[in-house]
Amino acid sequence: MNTLFQARYGAATAPGYTLNPTLETLLEHRSVRSYQDKALAPNTLELLIAAAQSASTSSNLQSWSVVAIEDPERKDRLARMAGNQEHIRACPLFLVWLVDLARLDALGDRRGLARDSLDYLELLMVGVIDATLAAQNAAIAAESMNLGIVYIGGMRNQPEAVAAELGLPPRTFGLFGMCIGHPNPERPAAVKPRLPQQAVLHREQYNAKQITAPADDYITTMSNFYKSQGMKTHGDWDQHSLHRVRGPEAMAGRDRLAEALKKLGLALR
Amino acid sequence: MNTLFQARYGAATAPGYTLNPTLETLLEHRSVRSYQDKALAPNTLELLIAAAQSASTSSNLQSWSVVAIEDPERKDRLARMAGNQEHIRACPLFLVWLVDLARLDALGDRRGLARDSLDYLELLMVGVIDATLAAQNAAIAAESMNLGIVYIGGMRNQPEAVAAELGLPPRTFGLFGMCIGHPNPERPAAVKPRLPQQAVLHREQYNAKQITAPADDYITTMSNFYKSQGMKTHGDWDQHSLHRVRGPEAMAGRDRLAEALKKLGLALR
Repeated sequence: MNTLFQARYGAATAPGYTLNPTLETLLEHRSVRSYQDKALAPNTLELLIAAAQSASTSSNLQSWSVVAIEDPERKDRLARMAGNQEHIRACPLFLVWLVDLARLDALGDRRGLARDSLDYLELLMVGVIDATLAAQNAAIAAESMNLGIVYIGGMRNQPEAVAAELGLPPRTFGLFGMCIGHPNPERPAAVKPRLPQQAVLHREQYNAKQITAPADDYITTMSNFYKSQGMKTHGDWDQHSLHRVRGPEAMAGRDRLAEALKKLGLALR
Repeated sequence: MNTLFQARYGAATAPGYTLNPTLETLLEHRSVRSYQDKALAPNTLELLIAAAQSASTSSNLQSWSVVAIEDPERKDRLARMAGNQEHIRACPLFLVWLVDLARLDALGDRRGLARDSLDYLELLMVGVIDATLAAQNAAIAAESMNLGIVYIGGMRNQPEAVAAELGLPPRTFGLFGMCIGHPNPERPAAVKPRLPQQAVLHREQYNAKQITAPADDYITTMSNFYKSQGMKTHGDWDQHSLHRVRGPEAMAGRDRLAEALKKLGLALR
């Protein structure tokens, strides 16, 4: 299993750990953006949702839900909202994962009970964490079934338009999308290297000295990766990462996320 | 594998899907709060981190990191900050998962490049999603190695105190903790039922009619679950869930999360 570690860290050598099938599935992840024109096997969605619901959820509030989209016209409209991403059209199943505080709101209304915490940033955070835990379980489940996935952050480019398209009630929003399908063997995706472990793993306390030296090693690793993949990438990893976060003009509309969430009934107190 | 579906949905019967080992691991999740006094096998942490880093990350920004804590005195102090949760003291390894925008800030400073997007809610969202995807991969990895885990949202009760304890730089904060250890066989945890699939899974558009009827079924399921576990729970699932979100007085300090994050350098524009 050295090869999986080598691919993940772009390292010449790697420790010889023995991996179980689940660890292999986790380490083999790559984002898949090219799919076969092939339907999913029956019951796939039900298995993905059972996996998603098996994830941890804060205080068992289950403050998320998901919209499964197969209609080509709806996928086309959502693709446009996400900066015209072709793989949303191409995948047989597109999931939009929702932060969902509407369920608790409706149940509170029915009981005549207060639910004032729903107006606080903390409950948005709970919903984001719950939805993300659920989504990642579905992603792992899909990959264990030899399907490919890619997350679509572009659902946050135009949150109100996505909410209108999906008929969302107040206090919900589309956190991210997920394309799911059979990977196209003619355009295989590669495992992308990540930062060295010492860049992300701190012992007992945060060590700010772990930032620049591992990042420099990673910049070299990624330059080699771009070359090996025939990718024409401008500048180093840190440069184009910084280019992405340079300011609101580079955020594809997401600079107004706080305003959009407030309009959708998430107060962020 | 009907038994796993039955446990997850508290249903008398369940579809007879064939599950691969990864799906079994996902569906078997339960939160573990009682641990053996037993060290983790060598290299466990390195495998967990490799799994965590293999998760998707928005634009490959990798805007998270993690602090691994084994020191009993530090675990004790963190346990107090989280409402005195004994399992934080009892587990051999406690991880605090961080939203980390400090790395990009430091790399931008070194290059003399703008990174104005770091002040926006969107980048906080990216960090929360990245950290949560990574953490869930580590959780699945741990469970695939027969370890038990539980998430600790109580890290958000006192974000500044946690940041001081862990020596965190500005633009980072502890999103949640995670206890990891060998489950105590004398106090086994049960698989907790979740809402019926139709409560969380919408087709093409959100269907608000899916809220109350499935919730009623679930209230019955959970009442049966509490009885079967000998748990004395006040009221129905919806009632105590609503009790948890009734207002700021029930939030253990998390009503001031927005203020705390701003103090820690996350501007939430």
